[in-house]
Amino acid sequence: MDITKHNFYEELDNILKAIEESTFLSIDGEFTGLDAEGCSHCAPFDTPSERYSKLKNGSTDFLLLQVGLCAFKVDEGKRMYEAKPYNFYLFPSVPHRSAPDKRFMCQSSSIDFLVSQGFDFNKVFREGIPYLTAEQEHQMRCFLEQKHSEQSNQSFSAMEIPENQREFMEDICEKIDAFMAKEDAEPLEIKGCNGLQRKLVYQTVEEKYPLARLETKTGENKERYLLLHGAKNSEELAKIDRERQAAEMMELDIQVGFSKVFQAITKAEKLVVGHNMFLDVLHCIKHFHSSLPDDLEDFKSLVTGVLPRLVDTKLISSTPPLKDFIEKTSLGELHEALQSKPFKPVTIKTAPGFERYTEEETKLHEAGYDAFITGSCFATMCKFLGSCQKPATDFLLPSSSVIKTFVNKLYLMRIADIQYLTLDGPDMEVNRDHVFYVTFPKEWRMSDLFSLFEPYGNIQISWLSNTSALVGLHNKKNAKIAFEALSKEKGLFHVSSYAFYHRNKALKWSAAAVKRKNSEELELPPNKIKRQSLDADRNSSIKKPVTEASSEGEAQSGDNSGRKLFDESTDW
Amino acid sequence: MDITKHNFYEELDNILKAIEESTFLSIDGEFTGLDAEGCSHCAPFDTPSERYSKLKNGSTDFLLLQVGLCAFKVDEGKRMYEAKPYNFYLFPSVPHRSAPDKRFMCQSSSIDFLVSQGFDFNKVFREGIPYLTAEQEHQMRCFLEQKHSEQSNQSFSAMEIPENQREFMEDICEKIDAFMAKEDAEPLEIKGCNGLQRKLVYQTVEEKYPLARLETKTGENKERYLLLHGAKNSEELAKIDRERQAAEMMELDIQVGFSKVFQAITKAEKLVVGHNMFLDVLHCIKHFHSSLPDDLEDFKSLVTGVLPRLVDTKLISSTPPLKDFIEKTSLGELHEALQSKPFKPVTIKTAPGFERYTEEETKLHEAGYDAFITGSCFATMCKFLGSCQKPATDFLLPSSSVIKTFVNKLYLMRIADIQYLTLDGPDMEVNRDHVFYVTFPKEWRMSDLFSLFEPYGNIQISWLSNTSALVGLHNKKNAKIAFEALSKEKGLFHVSSYAFYHRNKALKWSAAAVKRKNSEELELPPNKIKRQSLDADRNSSIKKPVTEASSEGEAQSGDNSGRKLFDESTDW
Repeated sequence: MDITKHNFYEELDNILKAIEESTFLSIDGEFTGLDAEGCSHCAPFDTPSERYSKLKNGSTDFLLLQVGLCAFKVDEGKRMYEAKPYNFYLFPSVPHRSAPDKRFMCQSSSIDFLVSQGFDFNKVFREGIPYLTAEQEHQMRCFLEQKHSEQSNQSFSAMEIPENQREFMEDICEKIDAFMAKEDAEPLEIKGCNGLQRKLVYQTVEEKYPLARLETKTGENKERYLLLHGAKNSEELAKIDRERQAAEMMELDIQVGFSKVFQAITKAEKLVVGHNMFLDVLHCIKHFHSSLPDDLEDFKSLVTGVLPRLVDTKLISSTPPLKDFIEKTSLGELHEALQSKPFKPVTIKTAPGFERYTEEETKLHEAGYDAFITGSCFATMCKFLGSCQKPATDFLLPSSSVIKTFVNKLYLMRIADIQYLTLDGPDMEVNRDHVFYVTFPKEWRMSDLFSLFEPYGNIQISWLSNTSALVGLHNKKNAKIAFEALSKEKGLFHVSSYAFYHRNKALKWSAAAVKRKNSEELELPPNKIKRQSLDADRNSSIKKPVTEASSEGEAQSGDNSGRKLFDESTDW
Repeated sequence: MDITKHNFYEELDNILKAIEESTFLSIDGEFTGLDAEGCSHCAPFDTPSERYSKLKNGSTDFLLLQVGLCAFKVDEGKRMYEAKPYNFYLFPSVPHRSAPDKRFMCQSSSIDFLVSQGFDFNKVFREGIPYLTAEQEHQMRCFLEQKHSEQSNQSFSAMEIPENQREFMEDICEKIDAFMAKEDAEPLEIKGCNGLQRKLVYQTVEEKYPLARLETKTGENKERYLLLHGAKNSEELAKIDRERQAAEMMELDIQVGFSKVFQAITKAEKLVVGHNMFLDVLHCIKHFHSSLPDDLEDFKSLVTGVLPRLVDTKLISSTPPLKDFIEKTSLGELHEALQSKPFKPVTIKTAPGFERYTEEETKLHEAGYDAFITGSCFATMCKFLGSCQKPATDFLLPSSSVIKTFVNKLYLMRIADIQYLTLDGPDMEVNRDHVFYVTFPKEWRMSDLFSLFEPYGNIQISWLSNTSALVGLHNKKNAKIAFEALSKEKGLFHVSSYAFYHRNKALKWSAAAVKRKNSEELELPPNKIKRQSLDADRNSSIKKPVTEASSEGEAQSGDNSGRKLFDESTDW
């Protein structure tokens, strides 16, 4: 069911009820972009903390345009689920001047991709539901409360009426006099004023018309106009004030919008399922709950408080026993694989009114549909895991202990040795003795690195810059002899251990943080800093090739951080 | 005439001819946003250099979605013009992986505004014409040339075929064998491979099929697939290579797109007219020519080289004698004012095929229409200026010396004492002895500043932060006594001269630049810096009120830099 701002409040109670009554929920999001310029969020030797930083800093300035939410309710007797898939169109429009005016990033290739999938940008920008974080809501509420408490005694410093505005103001005063003299007149619209004129009208009303109240409105074509309310006496004036204050509080409530749904998800504490959901989770928290902390551990505390039970279907499908039967784990391909042997798809019936989606007719990359089939994949994988148990069960509920091993683990894209982020505990420690930090002349290409490491077998390269890379040996047994031989060589290149690289990086960062703090104390203009960081990225405007083999589908963008020009010709 | 990527090449010759034959050109642009978060680009005491910096750093990360270009050709005998208004839809889509993948900013209120004007986002994203700066074009051309020169001897470092991919690869090899055995077969499409599989296919073809060439294609739904070309002998293989190289060069040419039109405008050296055109000029240069320099003087050199004769209709209409007859100078209001006495509108006939716009039916904020009426306003204002000459002329050509006084001066929005930027010379020096730099406790509101300066008459406030502002006296004669009295007072506030503020700011900036340079040497990760700058802006997420009276129409956003919460209730 498509939900826009036109039917949101009509459906809200049903949505909240569906969440409350669900056995589990599934979610999906569509974004205006994936990665900041010149840096992919995926590199094969990322640590969980590095990955989190990259996503937080490089991927969450984009906007969440569409959220899919599907409520699945089990019918244990019939061994099936009833699904209510909702497809929310979201946009933080600015209906009046006290609403936040959001700036957000877009990425051309992501816009291209959404266009190719038939995404309706006119609909999302025109009919999108707004949202606020709790912090924004609180700020706006305090602001309104302060404004309302001071409304009756606001003091105006009047400016002299400029020569060329006198005729205009005399005309306005005549109109106001006539209006105030009428009985029970509708509020008076004063249109076609510029900013100066509105200011003059405000100060004149303040001075001369104690029983009148002005407000600034925004018309359909975004033009501003004034609305004058007139009272017969101070009681009526107080009533006008109360009504206007109530209307402003209601407007704020409308601005909270989709965040109400998110708050209900938090409150319900249901299992929330997503496919490759790390980025979805980050976006949801940032847009509907609160800003993201710098530190991964703080993020873990935050997310387990807000979404206490998360399950990632990409992780389940990439883990034995499922892994052995599933070759490709993009959502569409996973869903297809689960339709045939050895899997037995669980029957999912869409609830009345939700017939827009069927499992047969694909609407991939529409958030509501993706959430729907993510949940369907989850149910079928649960069933399969049940059939692998001893004794086998034919229908495994998500609350089963078999599923518990997957709860609060988020799949990490394209990291070879750390498959998931553990939200409710420490992440796994890995040995990276087979990974080397290599520096080399800027003329070096992929083939030079392959040549250098040829005696030690196949390698995996993760470019860090034009003159450095992390290189991992496929055959870990060769780590020691490779390091002994290469680290001593004196030539155009230099090979150090991964541990050395990491220690050094941590040191550089903390030194940089001190310097940065000094800059802040100097009141370095923020824009200036931002510009600089964009310039730093400029030299990678031409896309570089993908070095890593990637399992695709979810990711529209390749891993293109700091790759070398020549290698584009490999063109995988 | 609407121009999208579907009719761009069909119409290009006509467009270039219209530019070449024109008497003057007019331009207009529609953007995805106006100001970076928390800072307006307009403040009343900006210097030209500060204004340029603000626009460059805060306003040009947005995208130019639509460019209007109208070519006006005079018919001196009939004392009229023929107009060819073009409305270009622009979007830097990413048709293949070597095209730049642009990141750009959007501002919610600007998107809202465009939506309210009926702007078609689906059309612009789907059918927009691409563009490249000269620098990007050069980079991509070099890259392709290098790739083509190395194509024949590219060396691949092969990886071992993983166990689970062997069956897949055997199947592929069978297909390739069959394909290579056929006579004159169409290239073989290999679909449904993931990144790893494409890599394996590439290396296998490289190893085993010397007479075959692979390329990666992107399908309609953005899915990637491989295309295999087979040759009978090395001559045919060379032919395949040549054809593919030519196709890639042609693709690059298509990517240059709208920049060809801009290059033609530069080459033609025509008078280019815009309304409040500073931001339009910045965007055009940044997107279609080259990156913007940091320094205003460098920008002036750049722009006079690229667009050597610019005229701003907002400046003409804000300057006597026009100013005395025109109250409001937003484009729509100016156009309306020029239709009646004392003005005599110049007859503008749209050329055959360009009937979409008439002066009667308004399509304001569609770039092509805005360019059309900007030129029409210009022609009528020229005529009026001609009638004011002694002896009066009934039809003044834009080449007249009367117009020369306006050439290369760009209107500066909302600066009280510097009306325009002089592109071909130094800017005017102004005396700001009546402006003071005031610091005060964060609880202070506008009314506290009004009280402080009450003995010296009306003031103009430009907030710098929650605890500082520039305050200008309307009555400049009071400057000396105000400064003498207030600068000596010891209290909650502190008043210094504008000169002191400016000197101090310049010092702080140069110190910050040194610190920044140190940070750069430490390789401070760019993303980290950017994030920080965003956080610095966070506290201004609630919109602050407009202190300045503003002439509106062009500007969708008020001047809201660092204003105080309470003052929102003034709500002009």
